[in-house]
Amino acid sequence: MMIIKSISELRQAIKQKRAELPKATVGFVPTMGYLHRGHASLLERARKECSIVVLSIFVNPLQFGPNEDFERYPRDVERDLAIAKSAGADIVFFPQVSEMYPKPTKTIVGVSGVTERLCGASRPGHFDGVATVVTKLFNIVLPDFAYFGMKDAQQVAVIEQMVYDLNIPLTIVPCETLREDDGLAMSSRNVYLSDEERQQAIVLSRALSDAEQALEAQQGAITVEQLRTVVTDRIASAPLAVIDYADILTYPALEPMDQIREGERFIIALAVKFGRTRLIDNRIYNR
Amino acid sequence: MMIIKSISELRQAIKQKRAELPKATVGFVPTMGYLHRGHASLLERARKECSIVVLSIFVNPLQFGPNEDFERYPRDVERDLAIAKSAGADIVFFPQVSEMYPKPTKTIVGVSGVTERLCGASRPGHFDGVATVVTKLFNIVLPDFAYFGMKDAQQVAVIEQMVYDLNIPLTIVPCETLREDDGLAMSSRNVYLSDEERQQAIVLSRALSDAEQALEAQQGAITVEQLRTVVTDRIASAPLAVIDYADILTYPALEPMDQIREGERFIIALAVKFGRTRLIDNRIYNR
Repeated sequence: MMIIKSISELRQAIKQKRAELPKATVGFVPTMGYLHRGHASLLERARKECSIVVLSIFVNPLQFGPNEDFERYPRDVERDLAIAKSAGADIVFFPQVSEMYPKPTKTIVGVSGVTERLCGASRPGHFDGVATVVTKLFNIVLPDFAYFGMKDAQQVAVIEQMVYDLNIPLTIVPCETLREDDGLAMSSRNVYLSDEERQQAIVLSRALSDAEQALEAQQGAITVEQLRTVVTDRIASAPLAVIDYADILTYPALEPMDQIREGERFIIALAVKFGRTRLIDNRIYNR
Repeated sequence: MMIIKSISELRQAIKQKRAELPKATVGFVPTMGYLHRGHASLLERARKECSIVVLSIFVNPLQFGPNEDFERYPRDVERDLAIAKSAGADIVFFPQVSEMYPKPTKTIVGVSGVTERLCGASRPGHFDGVATVVTKLFNIVLPDFAYFGMKDAQQVAVIEQMVYDLNIPLTIVPCETLREDDGLAMSSRNVYLSDEERQQAIVLSRALSDAEQALEAQQGAITVEQLRTVVTDRIASAPLAVIDYADILTYPALEPMDQIREGERFIIALAVKFGRTRLIDNRIYNR
């Protein structure tokens, strides 16, 4: 496994590997590091589907707000490299901020519509930062396939919109959220949680399961408002949980819906704070 | 010469030509059509420097304001194809608006800083439209070199900034402005001019030459304000000319300058209206 910090070396390495393997495909897993089994599952899928697997580890300052956790975002490169290796990565791209942004960027890739609600509303500028760095990484790696976890469902919607609008020549592969045994969605930020918060954090996935059950029990008779109440009631059962949002929107357009319609995909998306830690989770439903 | 209207066919054609020619380079000349000798010179340069030459003809609605000349922008595809062929194009990409924008784009590539002044100020949203469509075209054509005329010096600065910031894997080749015998910069919009306007339109290039002479005559002793007066006096000598802007800025950052400094590149950039027709011209100076 190659570990590369410079853009020009990365381009050279990928070019060379492509030249060695005619008809090679490059699978790319962009991450912010502090890898967990969710990331490993993306790498394993890329390993199965592509001839060359590239992982990037880059905590992108552009997608963090001024009062967010850029500085304290967890980092553990040694462990990341071990996970990357065992999951089958060929190349790990691990640039410094000065390599990705030698000067402050004047160019921003902005996606409207899908970014208006959820994390787009809670974290102004976040998705501009995501879309911009992902565009940069795509231009550097030139992958055929890029793998993203559905825990960040809005991020997937934003990237897919951007790829469609800008004719970026690759395929986005959305991958299922991996969960701890008790249902908590895997996240690098779970490490922030105290024991008590960690116990209560299961209300996010519980709330999504409650919604599933309510939908099944009431076959089409349930309203959006009733469904939201099912979800928020469950979250409120955790004394430390503070809801940032609990929204029911169409997917992937992420627009409000007045009723649950047969055959329409929708998402229940949650962001819940435990102390300073903000967790997200979601489930996509198909009536 | 191939004439292609669909993105997928264009990609296929370029892929095939690349496969036929190992180490092939693709030179790309994006235009809005109604080609003149300026465009032809870009194609000829691409022909000299690259193995595959792609021309695009697309009047991009996204870069026109609501009261601008999108509808009446001159079009003559038959003549364009003849010029393209004789200048050595291999492929002409000539998409409809519905091919480039099957749905209204939600993704905008925005460049700040270099777009604040000149045409960026006079034509709000113009460079968002330019940067977005150029990004799309780059993602479709995947050129190694892209050729742009320096008549649109701010456009070149915007595209170069964008390529730098987004790590777009290609080289921008800025090319000299071509001029009519009397000095008028070639432009598809010159066709809008009445005979009288056409005669007076030479004041743009005259003003730039006057500035050159004033700079030479006064070796460093001339102020920015004096230089601006030289330029605006000459333009004012044409009764039909209405100045949109006549600015002296650093190049390529396009920032205001308080004095002319030894060794600092700067641009005198002009936009002048004759009736409904808006002409631009510029010259870059190096003291």
